[in-house]
Amino acid sequence: MVGISLEEALDLLEQASRIDIKVEKLLLHAANGRILAKDYYAPISNPPFDRSPLDGYAFKAEDSSGASMDRPVTLKVKGVVYAGEYYEAEVNNQEAVRIMTGAPIPKGCDCVLRQEDTDEGEVEVQIYKALKPFDNYCFKGEDIKEGHLLLKAGEKLSPVKLGILASMGFQEVEVRQPLRMGLLCTGDELTPIGEDLKLGKIYNANEVMIQTKAMELGIQIQVLKMQQDTPEAVAKCLEEHWDEIDLMVTTGGVSVGKKDIMHDVINLLGAKRLFWRIAIQPGTPVLAACYKEKLLIGLSGNPFAALANFELIIRPVVAYLTQDEMLKPIHTTGIMENEFKKKSIKRRFIRAYFEDGKVKLNHNNHASGALYTMSLCNALIDIPAGSTGLDIGEEVKVILVDTRG
Amino acid sequence: MVGISLEEALDLLEQASRIDIKVEKLLLHAANGRILAKDYYAPISNPPFDRSPLDGYAFKAEDSSGASMDRPVTLKVKGVVYAGEYYEAEVNNQEAVRIMTGAPIPKGCDCVLRQEDTDEGEVEVQIYKALKPFDNYCFKGEDIKEGHLLLKAGEKLSPVKLGILASMGFQEVEVRQPLRMGLLCTGDELTPIGEDLKLGKIYNANEVMIQTKAMELGIQIQVLKMQQDTPEAVAKCLEEHWDEIDLMVTTGGVSVGKKDIMHDVINLLGAKRLFWRIAIQPGTPVLAACYKEKLLIGLSGNPFAALANFELIIRPVVAYLTQDEMLKPIHTTGIMENEFKKKSIKRRFIRAYFEDGKVKLNHNNHASGALYTMSLCNALIDIPAGSTGLDIGEEVKVILVDTRG
Repeated sequence: MVGISLEEALDLLEQASRIDIKVEKLLLHAANGRILAKDYYAPISNPPFDRSPLDGYAFKAEDSSGASMDRPVTLKVKGVVYAGEYYEAEVNNQEAVRIMTGAPIPKGCDCVLRQEDTDEGEVEVQIYKALKPFDNYCFKGEDIKEGHLLLKAGEKLSPVKLGILASMGFQEVEVRQPLRMGLLCTGDELTPIGEDLKLGKIYNANEVMIQTKAMELGIQIQVLKMQQDTPEAVAKCLEEHWDEIDLMVTTGGVSVGKKDIMHDVINLLGAKRLFWRIAIQPGTPVLAACYKEKLLIGLSGNPFAALANFELIIRPVVAYLTQDEMLKPIHTTGIMENEFKKKSIKRRFIRAYFEDGKVKLNHNNHASGALYTMSLCNALIDIPAGSTGLDIGEEVKVILVDTRG
Repeated sequence: MVGISLEEALDLLEQASRIDIKVEKLLLHAANGRILAKDYYAPISNPPFDRSPLDGYAFKAEDSSGASMDRPVTLKVKGVVYAGEYYEAEVNNQEAVRIMTGAPIPKGCDCVLRQEDTDEGEVEVQIYKALKPFDNYCFKGEDIKEGHLLLKAGEKLSPVKLGILASMGFQEVEVRQPLRMGLLCTGDELTPIGEDLKLGKIYNANEVMIQTKAMELGIQIQVLKMQQDTPEAVAKCLEEHWDEIDLMVTTGGVSVGKKDIMHDVINLLGAKRLFWRIAIQPGTPVLAACYKEKLLIGLSGNPFAALANFELIIRPVVAYLTQDEMLKPIHTTGIMENEFKKKSIKRRFIRAYFEDGKVKLNHNNHASGALYTMSLCNALIDIPAGSTGLDIGEEVKVILVDTRG
């Protein structure tokens, strides 16, 4: 068998890299999706005071004893308190305060009656319902208690978590900086998009695909351009940008051909080779090295192979480096709706469409160089080495690669 | 029952709005997640020529007849072709061309043998294996045929789809502009984050929560600030920004209290009221109007109510306005792992944690004003009006609101 296992490859990559992700302070609205760099405790309670959950009247519950539509109780309306205000005076028996949703419950009151159960009087109010103490009473700290651990270092910020920080008055938040990834697509055959295509050349589909995949993972990506497709030019380009990145990804130049220059690039850099070739198909000839404690991962240049390599190798490596569990590939199982009659000598990943536990092969082009059929798919089927084929109704392992449809 | 049904409310909103989303041209890497504005057809085939899928030798299959390790066939190596190059001359019988992965297959050749099955000779090569015509032969247009419909207007762009456009040489893509949403949080009690909190006041948690939720949906959001919490100031602020937005969302001021100013704001604007109050809890007092063919949707000011309103009302409205199916709320069902003993007079939405078909109530604070427990949840349980409570093992309707964990 050519190559190490995918799991061994991931172990080697995780062991080799020693990056140091810095911390930065961001305004809350700019921090969504970022990883918290420290624990956050509640500096205040929320709500910060006992408050009314509705529009009505606050009073002492004992004063409403026996009140009903037929036998209303009359209370003197001592004042009014709106949300955002504070009612200073103490409320005594036989007194009520008109109160709006969110306003602090005045001292002496222990309940709030909704205005629909009163005559909405402004000098005196008729109470049509008896309440118990703390009916319609929202306690200070009911949502969050002062001193409570709100959010932990390592958590990923979401709109709700940012709302929680805002409710505590935090204006900024300390988060980890995004992972910085460099991307360089190699290959003499590649023509930049927008230019005329000469005979024998193809357009560079990998660059924008990996660039936008990386952006979706919250990576700060830098797309590199080199002058010439030679080992010297590539090594020089990588070296020049090495301090600006945490992880370098290349495509192409990793196979056994005469222009598979990445082997020489590693030597020119003086990088330590970690492995070459993983026992998977497509994308076998992955080449990995470590240089100045950062990873250089060379992916296959075939578009589908590069995409599968990204999902199977780059994604878990990024999840590990950023300690962002949510970036890990999503593994599940599904039942085959079609058959796949090919034998697999190596462990093979084929593209498929997964929905409601069912796995469909909705196309018949599994070639490494073919990208179009991947746009119809959202999953990779993980076929073990030595498989003689997949049958209808068979349970298979699946990795979801696009859960948005 | 107070209020119309959620479904009626959504129908009224959909019927009222007549926005016109413009089209713009973006570079591919900036267009991920955008909606295509036109159909795209393939201007070329991909691959653009018959090519080799591996490193080896191209020749006529008939010449390898009977070849084996023991009885190799010898061919004359006529030349070499690398990826990105083109081999001009016609290849005749008894001849081979050294060929690298991705290089065009020379005229006269109909197969490629991998170099591991040869002696890798440079002047003459020993062929150790017999091939059939078109073995290891990758046809022009195998991935994409010229003229083929690649992507349809209305499709959402993904990294793979951008890769497909790149492989065709497209540098830019015509997409719909993002929906422009204005957001104004009203309420005298609101204190901007970062300022000191006075007695009776609370911090504004809704603003950053809705702002970042909207950003996640690809909305271009503009956060508005007004000078004073009066109907006149709010109406003036909305009017000033009305031409810059496609949809206006406010929070607060929609209930029955004396400072529930949004009713007056609608009158001052001269907007047409569509409805007030939806028969759901939390977030009953949603107020909706139409002004200059654009929607004004006033949400409840309580943070959890505002969040539920966003998921139940704003999200489907945005999906409708943008014609982006993927933004629709995800409805599913699950089995209760806990009981919920409250009666529900209205249709009620409570927060819960959904995983693998199971629904957990992992907290006991369902208050509309409480936000913290929502950070532990990823779903809303949809409890029908008249429910006497939920039992363990009962199947319930669920809406997923945060599928990222």
